[in-house]
Amino acid sequence: MLEDKNRPFTKVSELGEFGLIDHLTKGIKLTQKSTVKGIGDDAAVISTTGNFQKVVTTDMLVEGVHFDLGYMPLKHLGYKAVIVNLSDIYAMNANPKQITVSMAISNRFPVEALEELYEGIKTACKLYQVDLVGGDTTSSTSGLIISITAIGEVEENQVAFRSGAKENDLLVLTGDIGAAYLGLQVLEREKQVFKANPNSQPDLEPYTYLVERQLKPEARKDIITLLKDLDVLPTSMIDVSDGLSSEILHICKASGVGCNVYEDKIPLDPQVISTCEEFNIDSTTIALSGGEDYELLFTITMEDFPKIKANPNFTIIGHITAEKEGVHLISRANTKIPVVARGWNPLKEE
Amino acid sequence: MLEDKNRPFTKVSELGEFGLIDHLTKGIKLTQKSTVKGIGDDAAVISTTGNFQKVVTTDMLVEGVHFDLGYMPLKHLGYKAVIVNLSDIYAMNANPKQITVSMAISNRFPVEALEELYEGIKTACKLYQVDLVGGDTTSSTSGLIISITAIGEVEENQVAFRSGAKENDLLVLTGDIGAAYLGLQVLEREKQVFKANPNSQPDLEPYTYLVERQLKPEARKDIITLLKDLDVLPTSMIDVSDGLSSEILHICKASGVGCNVYEDKIPLDPQVISTCEEFNIDSTTIALSGGEDYELLFTITMEDFPKIKANPNFTIIGHITAEKEGVHLISRANTKIPVVARGWNPLKEE
Repeated sequence: MLEDKNRPFTKVSELGEFGLIDHLTKGIKLTQKSTVKGIGDDAAVISTTGNFQKVVTTDMLVEGVHFDLGYMPLKHLGYKAVIVNLSDIYAMNANPKQITVSMAISNRFPVEALEELYEGIKTACKLYQVDLVGGDTTSSTSGLIISITAIGEVEENQVAFRSGAKENDLLVLTGDIGAAYLGLQVLEREKQVFKANPNSQPDLEPYTYLVERQLKPEARKDIITLLKDLDVLPTSMIDVSDGLSSEILHICKASGVGCNVYEDKIPLDPQVISTCEEFNIDSTTIALSGGEDYELLFTITMEDFPKIKANPNFTIIGHITAEKEGVHLISRANTKIPVVARGWNPLKEE
Repeated sequence: MLEDKNRPFTKVSELGEFGLIDHLTKGIKLTQKSTVKGIGDDAAVISTTGNFQKVVTTDMLVEGVHFDLGYMPLKHLGYKAVIVNLSDIYAMNANPKQITVSMAISNRFPVEALEELYEGIKTACKLYQVDLVGGDTTSSTSGLIISITAIGEVEENQVAFRSGAKENDLLVLTGDIGAAYLGLQVLEREKQVFKANPNSQPDLEPYTYLVERQLKPEARKDIITLLKDLDVLPTSMIDVSDGLSSEILHICKASGVGCNVYEDKIPLDPQVISTCEEFNIDSTTIALSGGEDYELLFTITMEDFPKIKANPNFTIIGHITAEKEGVHLISRANTKIPVVARGWNPLKEE
């Protein structure tokens, strides 16, 4: 769990709630001009400007459900917990500016473990230019729970909802997908191998991209800037957190439209293809249902097509149809397969 | 746990994450004009106006740490979880407008239990005119965890920080304190009695006020309106969640001042006095260290004294001194006792 297990351990109870918060948040610098007051009062204060709106999102990560500290270093966990929230802000075509972090921790975690968790949180804040402005730290009866809320801003007429897709719009995906899910499968397999033989050395070399996408995902801040530079306002947008098929269905349901997605257009990394072959699983299934890619899925009007054409950041994977035509995958064999949500469900029974 | 145990139970897994959220949030009406988009997208969208600033606070409640479902009905828990957050917004002299609600739930909770929890959340939202605009629902490996974030607004020059208290300011408390903590003691005692003899009928009649303050606390929305009407801008303000002594120390530390608090001025309800006698505990200790009262503690300039004088909502319990004079309780016997934080610490070891 801890990167350096030889360091001395400090019990959380030695510091108390306020002492612990002071300790973990010391040295935090506020860099966003909209942050009027950060940590240290009953609430943070955020200024507002002209025709900007605020966007707010929140996500909760639970040990044993969303992460396994057996292979997720705490620093990476802190980083990822921030990223999943920022991704939701970008999916509104907005820019995140502040986050709050609440944690419930069992007393098996020493202060040093929380320091590593906060290192990851602070690193993400720095890279994505976000201020940590508040939170809550309490104890838990069992594992670790992290709840983060992110607040961003966007010009009033620039918000991208899920609901704006129109017939004939193009469906666009950033980056490639499926890798994060496969990364988790690789880590799970190595964990089982290690359990069976603690002397085994994991060889993750052929899976570096997959493992990195799982353990250290990034949110597509660059895409929001790029879309602005290209003068493209998506008619609808969502981030790919639960799996591509689930996200396509969200856009179609919210917009009251149908969609054709082309199997041969779905962008896959070569490591995804080779690992799917090795694991003997269908790469399209992984791409559609995998989740945790944190890419952006959006629709644009046909008129905007020339602006994004040939840009390596974007792949046009389908187009929007009338609602009555339904949501289909057009397979390589040119058959129409209805898209169903098989995304990850955190409430399913084991 | 459930109010009506004869109702049929529905497993959460039958609905799935999105189905459950749809089910629990259906019928939610958005009433705040600043809410542009509520539940149903990657993030909520909130409009901003002129010289208003936004305030943001977050609190996490953990089963077995902050509440015991043995005597806390789920409806009350939902209500209280909202109240504790709104109280922090009022403590900034701001008005809450939106909340997000994240929950981790073990699968021992059927959908009907979550309906009751949400009933309490919705009731608080309605009474305090706040919109529920987002959240996250996931599973937990053990108990129930609720994390709420509240967002409010306040005119730019009307924010009350903890840090503005000045020498000679008056220290003012709303309502009375100590009751919520005693209510918890009464409930704990009845639980032990019930465990020893399941046929015993609890007689909570002499403790109605105490139990209500524990199970169904209110936040002082009325005080923010009243202060505005009276044209009083507190120089500093905090809500009494962890205990009066802890809150006084927060204001003094943040403001760089000292304080004298007068024991005989601390407002106590007659039930607090009689129950302290019955339990053979010192009522001043309870008042100073009890917590969970959700009253407001603030400072005002001497010039504002005539505006609040004789108002039954306010009690002047002390005055601000120079930092070097320290923070003291002036006892009924006129001795000076240093105030130390003995407020509730959610991180202490059992």
